[in-house]
Amino acid sequence: MRNLDQYNITQAVLARMANTPDPRLKQIMTSLVQHLHAFAREVKLTEAEWKAGIDFLTATGHMCTDQRQEFILLSDTLGLSMLTVAQNNDKPAGCTEATVFGPFHVEGAPHYEHGADVANGASGVPCRVSGSVRGIEGEPVAGALIDVWQADADGKYDVQRTDLPEAQGRGVLRSGDDGRFHFQSVVAEPYPIPDDGPVGDMLRATGRHPWRPAHLHFMIQAPGYETLVTHVFRDGGPYLDSDAVFGVRQSLVADWVQHPDGTYTLDFDFVLNRARPPATHVAAA
Amino acid sequence: MRNLDQYNITQAVLARMANTPDPRLKQIMTSLVQHLHAFAREVKLTEAEWKAGIDFLTATGHMCTDQRQEFILLSDTLGLSMLTVAQNNDKPAGCTEATVFGPFHVEGAPHYEHGADVANGASGVPCRVSGSVRGIEGEPVAGALIDVWQADADGKYDVQRTDLPEAQGRGVLRSGDDGRFHFQSVVAEPYPIPDDGPVGDMLRATGRHPWRPAHLHFMIQAPGYETLVTHVFRDGGPYLDSDAVFGVRQSLVADWVQHPDGTYTLDFDFVLNRARPPATHVAAA
Repeated sequence: MRNLDQYNITQAVLARMANTPDPRLKQIMTSLVQHLHAFAREVKLTEAEWKAGIDFLTATGHMCTDQRQEFILLSDTLGLSMLTVAQNNDKPAGCTEATVFGPFHVEGAPHYEHGADVANGASGVPCRVSGSVRGIEGEPVAGALIDVWQADADGKYDVQRTDLPEAQGRGVLRSGDDGRFHFQSVVAEPYPIPDDGPVGDMLRATGRHPWRPAHLHFMIQAPGYETLVTHVFRDGGPYLDSDAVFGVRQSLVADWVQHPDGTYTLDFDFVLNRARPPATHVAAA
Repeated sequence: MRNLDQYNITQAVLARMANTPDPRLKQIMTSLVQHLHAFAREVKLTEAEWKAGIDFLTATGHMCTDQRQEFILLSDTLGLSMLTVAQNNDKPAGCTEATVFGPFHVEGAPHYEHGADVANGASGVPCRVSGSVRGIEGEPVAGALIDVWQADADGKYDVQRTDLPEAQGRGVLRSGDDGRFHFQSVVAEPYPIPDDGPVGDMLRATGRHPWRPAHLHFMIQAPGYETLVTHVFRDGGPYLDSDAVFGVRQSLVADWVQHPDGTYTLDFDFVLNRARPPATHVAAA
């Protein structure tokens, strides 16, 4: 302990955590320390680079507010969010695929009746959205809680604006007895993720663009079913093959039909997986 | 790109960074993404655990102020700081070893003449500190900038107190023509690192104590020599074998001599390495 070097320090840190009471936390911390150290050794991280990393994380933390989650943006842009979603949402064929949650969901969005306009003043071309919620056997799921959120024509979510008296472009509906729902909104457009913070600096330094393809967020919850967090993407638009957060699934790309009057309709059917017992992650000793 | 899974997403993220202009940044980001993803796969990180990680990093960022660097504490307690120091300070035998910088250094500390009391009111038992600064050939290093900082008898650095009109327990001196220096201060005592934030939560959750053995910080800079960041530890005290930040080197543990009147003296000789050209870290293509 009095002469740790760059090699044996990893075992010393793990030994220090040997009495971690929670076995799952011990497993996570063990892997985290091993990979963190392996990274630093692999690149032979310098002290100046270590300091730059500390400063980057500090700036990322200072960017986070109730309205802005820069660490989620960082996780999203490094592919960690989609990896986590992918490895926890392996579902039977036929179920709607999941994708990233993103940083713009808000708890307690307003409830709307079918047919209501969830845009609630958000700018954009009118779009009527309809669809159904079903189970894997085709059974309609009645009373499912459908949480929907989206950016406006300028690519901004309501939480990115400071001048709004109430929620725009987000709301909660319940599916009907036939599992169906419909609401008015505006058509989704591509937008750049917020790039005025450390994550934007990282994207520029690594030669990346901040754009996401046009999409509408859904979170659908119903008793007896696994909660679905997903998007519906708009076919034909840019960035479907270079989403800044790696969230596109081909099965989630849908035809948003434009009509002669310029307005759009989208119809999408969601299929929920059955609820699963919580996974146990700690291997038997 | 439209059907990434938990395995091929890593290559997709690396491909997205293929045009990173700075080759060193590209090397670091490539290794970082690979280890971050490998960690998440290895433990099969759940979405709830991912969220807990986001919340932990956010709280850590919010704890950081001009006076508090929680990310450095996190790096220190995970052994990353000492690993980085160790792999960048491989010096010829005879040179004083380096250790962690820690979160409590302050730029622009007051300058003192030899013999002055750098405690400047900090509580503690008086201690006279003396020593020399030499090069590897034994040559005295005159005019070296000696930056010293330490906690008081209560284990607090001045920056952890809000009621102080000026710096306490820190100062800058210059070595004399013979390379020697001396100043008054108070004897160093063991102290716990600040554990009222997320890092403290992590230590408790992993069954660890927050204590550091008694030590005095030095940063010594002189033209033509490599800057030395180190501590002198106090022999015989607790926590030398369980330093919360893994910073102890046997060669830095010194005898702090207590005298019949209760006061202490410490004499320590520092040997600086010659300045090295900046390392190049990018392997030839």
